[in-house]
Amino acid sequence: MTALPRQPGFSPPIPTAAPDRPRTVALDVMGGDRAPAVALRAAAAISRDTDIALLLVGDAARLEAEFARLAPDPERIRWLHAPDAVAMGESPREAVARSSSSLALAAEAVAEGRADALVSAGNTGALLLHSARAIPRLPGVRRAALAAVYPTLPRPHNPDPFALLLDVGANLQCTAADLLQFAAMGAAYAARISKVAQPSVGLLNIGEESGKGDPLLREAHAALASAPGIAFHGNVEGRGVPLGAVDVVVCPGVMGNVVLKLLESMGEVLLAMGDAVYRERLRWRAGRFLLRDGVARVSNLLDYASYGGAPILGFERIVIKAHGRSGERALENAIKVAAKAVRDDVCGAIAAQLRGL
Amino acid sequence: MTALPRQPGFSPPIPTAAPDRPRTVALDVMGGDRAPAVALRAAAAISRDTDIALLLVGDAARLEAEFARLAPDPERIRWLHAPDAVAMGESPREAVARSSSSLALAAEAVAEGRADALVSAGNTGALLLHSARAIPRLPGVRRAALAAVYPTLPRPHNPDPFALLLDVGANLQCTAADLLQFAAMGAAYAARISKVAQPSVGLLNIGEESGKGDPLLREAHAALASAPGIAFHGNVEGRGVPLGAVDVVVCPGVMGNVVLKLLESMGEVLLAMGDAVYRERLRWRAGRFLLRDGVARVSNLLDYASYGGAPILGFERIVIKAHGRSGERALENAIKVAAKAVRDDVCGAIAAQLRGL
Repeated sequence: MTALPRQPGFSPPIPTAAPDRPRTVALDVMGGDRAPAVALRAAAAISRDTDIALLLVGDAARLEAEFARLAPDPERIRWLHAPDAVAMGESPREAVARSSSSLALAAEAVAEGRADALVSAGNTGALLLHSARAIPRLPGVRRAALAAVYPTLPRPHNPDPFALLLDVGANLQCTAADLLQFAAMGAAYAARISKVAQPSVGLLNIGEESGKGDPLLREAHAALASAPGIAFHGNVEGRGVPLGAVDVVVCPGVMGNVVLKLLESMGEVLLAMGDAVYRERLRWRAGRFLLRDGVARVSNLLDYASYGGAPILGFERIVIKAHGRSGERALENAIKVAAKAVRDDVCGAIAAQLRGL
Repeated sequence: MTALPRQPGFSPPIPTAAPDRPRTVALDVMGGDRAPAVALRAAAAISRDTDIALLLVGDAARLEAEFARLAPDPERIRWLHAPDAVAMGESPREAVARSSSSLALAAEAVAEGRADALVSAGNTGALLLHSARAIPRLPGVRRAALAAVYPTLPRPHNPDPFALLLDVGANLQCTAADLLQFAAMGAAYAARISKVAQPSVGLLNIGEESGKGDPLLREAHAALASAPGIAFHGNVEGRGVPLGAVDVVVCPGVMGNVVLKLLESMGEVLLAMGDAVYRERLRWRAGRFLLRDGVARVSNLLDYASYGGAPILGFERIVIKAHGRSGERALENAIKVAAKAVRDDVCGAIAAQLRGL
């Protein structure tokens, strides 16, 4: 198998999926904290419950018999044997040197059109590097971005409870031009996935006024304010992220990563603080007991491992990073989001949005 | 009145307060969302309940009679008339050009030794600029840093429920040397105020491993790891901030500002999410009702406007920025923290820690 060249300008465009054939999602069976068990169960359920076709990439020799016992629909399943796997804690640079891992082979399969999208709950850095090596970027894309989907307080104009934050760690050093592209890619993704015609975009900054921030943020603000086709809301402060000030929050990768991990901890922190206090009085203990499944519901809302996954935007194919802690349902959701993104031609929408810049 | 020169090398050191005279805190009466009413009430209470002397800086001509009706202890109060005030939303650069504002005169009074510390709930940028103009930096300090005090989950080795995060917006562009100084200043402050012998210091980053982050963070990590006298815990991820991974979190100012404002919104967001869910079932509504004052207690724990204030570290005098939304008790707390910091010679401790680098 030969990888496609990395520079988009030198590779023939990959045709987007024809509307009449089933969408195939390549699933890295070996990635995730609970691999391969969770991936196999999610794949079996998807094959039974949806019309999504799956290319399972992993140690087929060892896993095919185990998988068959989960009663999948065999019509929708193909296997691609990968003798090797990337460990969760492995250095991405070392991992990318090995071409026989499930991640490497899955990325190649997607690049070659044997699948339409790639889903992995595995090593984030290795997924990024393997995707970047195998799958061409969309025309004009400087850098692919890792976006996170997170819950906000209700936004009046957008029924989707989730907003998008990017970049969350794929790009540690960014220029204003990068941030502008992140905004365009995020807006195109949100428009197709959340079905909001003009998603609002905010730039994460230290204040809402336009002159705020360091030179990078001031330059990015100016670029965003004059960019055609982007509904730029202006600067957004830290509190605007969970409050749902905008549909798409743009920031450099170090900032986004720190913010995402802070958001992820919110439920846990508040639960622990509350329970330390509620122990003090009998009435509070009673109230907490009555609320037990209500609190669990809120915790689920805030459990980042329980839904979708983080799209990696900028490649000619959809790539979704599911949370390493993903359970079966989360991985199913990630696969469904990937199939939906293929069906709705999110890559085409991103390319169109970038052409309009 | 003449301002002292700004470069610490050119000004005579200000003697630290002699232990036998009462500590005087200069209070900018005109700063804060509810100025001057809240400041006057806080000042009256402090004069009655503590041995702290106050220099009230503001429109004495207009306010002295009003203040007298609040029954302060006149022995502990002096007034410094300021005909002018900095507005909360005013551009700091414009504000600093006016020398007759309460902020300008309060900073000068502190620089000249007529007060030992400065407290203001006013315009943060103007407080920073006026302090920097009037009060010399401690020897070797490159840049003063704005630190935020925030609540964490319990840290086993530290009984103080609060940890320190700096810089939170005074320094938008930082070098590794700046971050190292922030660590030293924050550790010295935490050691004196929290009474922990060796506060642990963490560098906010995208992962815990030492090679993580952009070149700035990698360089800062190396500098911190080899710095004498600093108990460097290593990198801290976003979730480590509220979880209390360390006593002092160090980061560049844009990051710290975003993180602080996100932390400040946590209680509000979780309360709103919970209440949207708890409405759905009668049992949950009952539980929520029983918990009503317990929830209020947790909200208070998370109300950043209700406690202390943000110390500005690196000057030869203590400067405390109280939250703009500070109520009377919060401002009282800020004044007490300022007096405690003077009594415990926090500036001397910071200078000693910096000498040891």
